[in-house]
Amino acid sequence: MVTRCYLDWNASAPLRESARDALHAALALPGNPSSVHGEGRAARQVIEQARGAVAALVNADARNVVFTSGGTEANALALTPSIDAGSKRPIVRLLVSAIEHPSVLAGGRFAPEAVERIAVADGVIDLGVLEQRLALGTRVLVSLMAANNETGVMQPIAQAAEVVHRHGGLLHVDAAQAAGRMTLDLPALGADLLTLSAHKIGGAKGAGALVKRDDALHIADPLIRGGGQERGGRAGTENVAAIAAFGSAAAAIRADLAADVRHMERLRDRLEAGIRKATPQAVIFGANAARLPNTTLVAMPGARAETLVIAFDLDGVAVSSGAACSSGKVAPSHVLAAMGVEPALARGAIRISTGPATREADIDRFLNVWQRLAKSLSRGMKPGLAA
Amino acid sequence: MVTRCYLDWNASAPLRESARDALHAALALPGNPSSVHGEGRAARQVIEQARGAVAALVNADARNVVFTSGGTEANALALTPSIDAGSKRPIVRLLVSAIEHPSVLAGGRFAPEAVERIAVADGVIDLGVLEQRLALGTRVLVSLMAANNETGVMQPIAQAAEVVHRHGGLLHVDAAQAAGRMTLDLPALGADLLTLSAHKIGGAKGAGALVKRDDALHIADPLIRGGGQERGGRAGTENVAAIAAFGSAAAAIRADLAADVRHMERLRDRLEAGIRKATPQAVIFGANAARLPNTTLVAMPGARAETLVIAFDLDGVAVSSGAACSSGKVAPSHVLAAMGVEPALARGAIRISTGPATREADIDRFLNVWQRLAKSLSRGMKPGLAA
Repeated sequence: MVTRCYLDWNASAPLRESARDALHAALALPGNPSSVHGEGRAARQVIEQARGAVAALVNADARNVVFTSGGTEANALALTPSIDAGSKRPIVRLLVSAIEHPSVLAGGRFAPEAVERIAVADGVIDLGVLEQRLALGTRVLVSLMAANNETGVMQPIAQAAEVVHRHGGLLHVDAAQAAGRMTLDLPALGADLLTLSAHKIGGAKGAGALVKRDDALHIADPLIRGGGQERGGRAGTENVAAIAAFGSAAAAIRADLAADVRHMERLRDRLEAGIRKATPQAVIFGANAARLPNTTLVAMPGARAETLVIAFDLDGVAVSSGAACSSGKVAPSHVLAAMGVEPALARGAIRISTGPATREADIDRFLNVWQRLAKSLSRGMKPGLAA
Repeated sequence: MVTRCYLDWNASAPLRESARDALHAALALPGNPSSVHGEGRAARQVIEQARGAVAALVNADARNVVFTSGGTEANALALTPSIDAGSKRPIVRLLVSAIEHPSVLAGGRFAPEAVERIAVADGVIDLGVLEQRLALGTRVLVSLMAANNETGVMQPIAQAAEVVHRHGGLLHVDAAQAAGRMTLDLPALGADLLTLSAHKIGGAKGAGALVKRDDALHIADPLIRGGGQERGGRAGTENVAAIAAFGSAAAAIRADLAADVRHMERLRDRLEAGIRKATPQAVIFGANAARLPNTTLVAMPGARAETLVIAFDLDGVAVSSGAACSSGKVAPSHVLAAMGVEPALARGAIRISTGPATREADIDRFLNVWQRLAKSLSRGMKPGLAA
């Protein structure tokens, strides 16, 4: 069997070894964290330790971390008109950027007519439009991603927060893709609410968190109700093992961030230089914007992303055509559409995303296949299906 | 360190070895199940195999299994007025028994005034009252548990289904505690929707399922929206590892059910005979009703459950005071209140719940401590804190 080359970390990152160890240890605990006996307390302790590590990752208070089943659920939990139930001024509308993750675009528990999308320019949210919409008077919840999952383009969160707060609004930041790839300091960002996903940072699938900046921000209508877990914020027996892995991964990416970023930047520069050299006609999206160090979205003109992804796969290289968020989805990227990219070009876009464990050899292997596919394409052959 | 004796399987069952193996294998797969490359397809395959096993456990079609993060979420997903969106006759009200799990009592997405509780007699739902309430005319969703988590008392699901369907209603059955302890055949039960929880059957915490009897039963408003996972029924990257463990545990309990039930019945008879002999004044709740083979809820008159649980814990035995569903809860059991049990007696109720791995020696160890505590109590001492 040929070794695989996994370059789809934005879809899901491989489990870190330390996270695997934490997970295995937690699996040996039979107790329900809500039980008062020793087994219950041991499970509870694992959760609280992880809560501290996740809070530390974003410089928040541990008590303001609500564990969920993942980023999608954290987004759904955050996006509710009752997010600031303690306030006298009710939240009435939801503003989201046009390039948000589908779980944000779905609008949470706002009525569809109360959700408005903010345009982007070059993949970056237009702060002028945001300010304009905020100035309409009613109190608004704004949801912006720290960095886009398809292009890696970072959003001007701190500036947006200033605008949002000046108008009395609240800011939710989906940082699922940003964690481990840029600094995430809740007070510095100015986010009121922040979403994290464990499996994007080397934790296991099945855990995420909504982090609140302020304990006073009370979610009056939890998405999942029943038992009083997570201080009433999220009912259901906690996923102790995945939470343990989440905490471990959070601690690791916090400790390694600077080195990891430098490593991924080097890989990205190598990758993009190689792509430009082999195929000057290729388009790298968001190339002029501040981007995550690990993400490259590139289109080979004339190619179809699905065909490319399959051709790469046959050669042992895992890349993706945009996001991997819904089974069997073949619709063109809403992110590229919002960026004004021609559908014909957008259809050829594939995403290469790396992580701390990616090596130069992986990049070179990708470039090798890329070059070969580009040649087949220029000869009018169906790439990847050549003899 | 003294070996612990874990008798709180209803709170959470220890992970089965086969489930642990399946989980470990799944953790090695980095892919997102929605990705089209080999890593994605491998993760997808694990999920679909588990889906088949979970479906087989309750004699349903695999395509009608919607994986969730657990039983609580499955209940919340099921309990919505839009549960049968394809029908011309809208669901207007929700009827639940007074002894349901808190996640059902919370009423899902029904307005509080549309939720009504049905009384129980001796821990069993009153079918006469159910019929009466159904006869009011509007279309109703009824939610009944297959067996109660605190007392183990089984509910007359098949008869209830007949009544519910005669009046054009739909029946949701929370079988979180019943699975692995009694036969669950979806068509035979007559349930339209069924909730399962992985960690109650030796799978890991973090997975559950809502199983539909009929593919035509369309949930128009998924609880968690975004990506199109679970055929649009539940967005968010699937918890591949916990789902793998769930499938493995489902296959195991299906294969072993008859033997497991006999084993747990023997343990229960030994336990209850021992309790009756040592403390004839003790009250075993639901003793005259059909009960799960693994659950005994018993009160020692004059004792406080919290004190007993702590005393047992100090002696290495894990039991619980009723349910373990919310952190720090010390309120008296709503189940016993609904059964008309005097608060003074209810406050002394502890639950012993076993599983396939429980041994006679565990029961004897419990009885040993029980006897000692009863003696301390009769001497007016604070049990468990004696020298």
